[in-house]
Amino acid sequence: MITLGAVTAAAARIREFVHRTPVLTSRTLDAAVGASVFCKCENLQKVGAFKARGACNAVFALPPDVAARGVVTHSSGNHAAALAYAARARGVPCAVVMPDTAPAIKVDAVRGYGAEIRFCKPADRDAVCAAWQRERGMHLVHPFEDPDVIAGQGTAALELLEQVPELDAVVTPVGGGGLCAGTAVVVRALRPAAQVVAAEPAAVDDAARSLATGVRQPRVDGAKSWADGLMTGLGEPNFRLLREHRVRVVTVDEPAIVAAARFFLQRMKLVVEPSAATVLAALHADGGALQGRRVGLVLSGGNTDFAWL
Amino acid sequence: MITLGAVTAAAARIREFVHRTPVLTSRTLDAAVGASVFCKCENLQKVGAFKARGACNAVFALPPDVAARGVVTHSSGNHAAALAYAARARGVPCAVVMPDTAPAIKVDAVRGYGAEIRFCKPADRDAVCAAWQRERGMHLVHPFEDPDVIAGQGTAALELLEQVPELDAVVTPVGGGGLCAGTAVVVRALRPAAQVVAAEPAAVDDAARSLATGVRQPRVDGAKSWADGLMTGLGEPNFRLLREHRVRVVTVDEPAIVAAARFFLQRMKLVVEPSAATVLAALHADGGALQGRRVGLVLSGGNTDFAWL
Repeated sequence: MITLGAVTAAAARIREFVHRTPVLTSRTLDAAVGASVFCKCENLQKVGAFKARGACNAVFALPPDVAARGVVTHSSGNHAAALAYAARARGVPCAVVMPDTAPAIKVDAVRGYGAEIRFCKPADRDAVCAAWQRERGMHLVHPFEDPDVIAGQGTAALELLEQVPELDAVVTPVGGGGLCAGTAVVVRALRPAAQVVAAEPAAVDDAARSLATGVRQPRVDGAKSWADGLMTGLGEPNFRLLREHRVRVVTVDEPAIVAAARFFLQRMKLVVEPSAATVLAALHADGGALQGRRVGLVLSGGNTDFAWL
Repeated sequence: MITLGAVTAAAARIREFVHRTPVLTSRTLDAAVGASVFCKCENLQKVGAFKARGACNAVFALPPDVAARGVVTHSSGNHAAALAYAARARGVPCAVVMPDTAPAIKVDAVRGYGAEIRFCKPADRDAVCAAWQRERGMHLVHPFEDPDVIAGQGTAALELLEQVPELDAVVTPVGGGGLCAGTAVVVRALRPAAQVVAAEPAAVDDAARSLATGVRQPRVDGAKSWADGLMTGLGEPNFRLLREHRVRVVTVDEPAIVAAARFFLQRMKLVVEPSAATVLAALHADGGALQGRRVGLVLSGGNTDFAWL
């Protein structure tokens, strides 16, 4: 399993390739939720999302001969851009399998970082990835199940606890669970009594049901949510880490996600993508469990087309 | 005239009432303009703009008996909200004269901080302000000519030079000139060889013409610009400070202002109001004068209705 040591090693490994993002506060926000809130701005991170952390850690942790053959992944979102960014930073090839329905803006971002793209039907992505691994000996970097990715994502919480040591709780979104699992490892090690809360869209509530039932439940298919980054099902190691570290899931509805994204834009002057805005929605939905506490919110990303606005 | 000492005193006076805003960088931005750019995020400041600095300094510099009678100003924009915020922080009354055409959202912001509002025709604002001063003995805090306001605005540049000491240039927007004058005082004292550049909409280019002719030129009436915060004419002490400290004005057109605001929103995940986005537009318009240099941009505010988007 992943330990605090893996996260501190990741922090040292990726330091020069990622931003130490600021922590912002707002009295308006504090008044709105009845808590002291500290926003860790991963929306201001390289590639616009925390995913730069995990991707950089995974790429720079590879032995030179493996790295030289390049890295491959499947993703339609922030992980694809992040892996392309990390590979370019190390000067190695990167290949990304994207669904043929991926928006042009995301395709352009990945191309802009110099990655090669193959399009396929969503159901074929594992096969296309495997083909690339066979043909070129590329190393697969899974978006959220790779241990180096999880450890890398944990560095956001590590920084947050350096910046604001006395937190009573840390809230992250949960989709595949890389950020949430890495955060749980860090918080449980450094602030054992603090809560780790995962914000999940009610439309894709497999993490909530997995933790409630004690059995990892399958991804919700065909759901609609503004939180496009959280549509994936919870990963297997992620599920185990969330259970082990007593993560509590709070589900949030779509109007609350949009209202939270609007709040960040209009009141805090921050572009926060709907997937990331779930953390504020969760504070509202949580029925006062964090009232009066010191709460860290990981604003996981800021890549959005503003369709929700 | 205003000295560095007045600005350092202001910084100490307002410390607990304003944010020490972060400085953000972006390789995409650096590549786009061919310089190393450091963004001082006053859009993340209290009330969403640097104006909180000057207003707090002016209010907290008042002797107790004067402060107790309250403060008054005329403004339709960020200064009104900032003065209301500062007065509430000190626990004294605040009155604001606003044009009867002021947008509801700005009126609500001022009311939200507990200020009293009187509406009038723009031409009558000085008379209405004077009446309030007579009736209640309130102290007038001019939006940009008040020396304490100018010194307070200078604290943004003071912080910026603490955060990034080796700057070759600092760029601010210029309207009435409070921010630009305060910045010029600080930069000329601490980095004598550095450039101070003022970004001004070409539609209201009285500062550019004032410095070019050596005589303060009148405000441009009836102009249209997205930069609603920069429509005021350059103030008298501000003009003298800009001349004395060798500020260079760069004018920018409207499409460049909108493009810059979009860049901040889409690439840097920051809400930057058009008035503030002028600083990036100025870098593009400046014909390479700052190529390869280390340039600080003061992103002066983030209060916008997104009509330009």
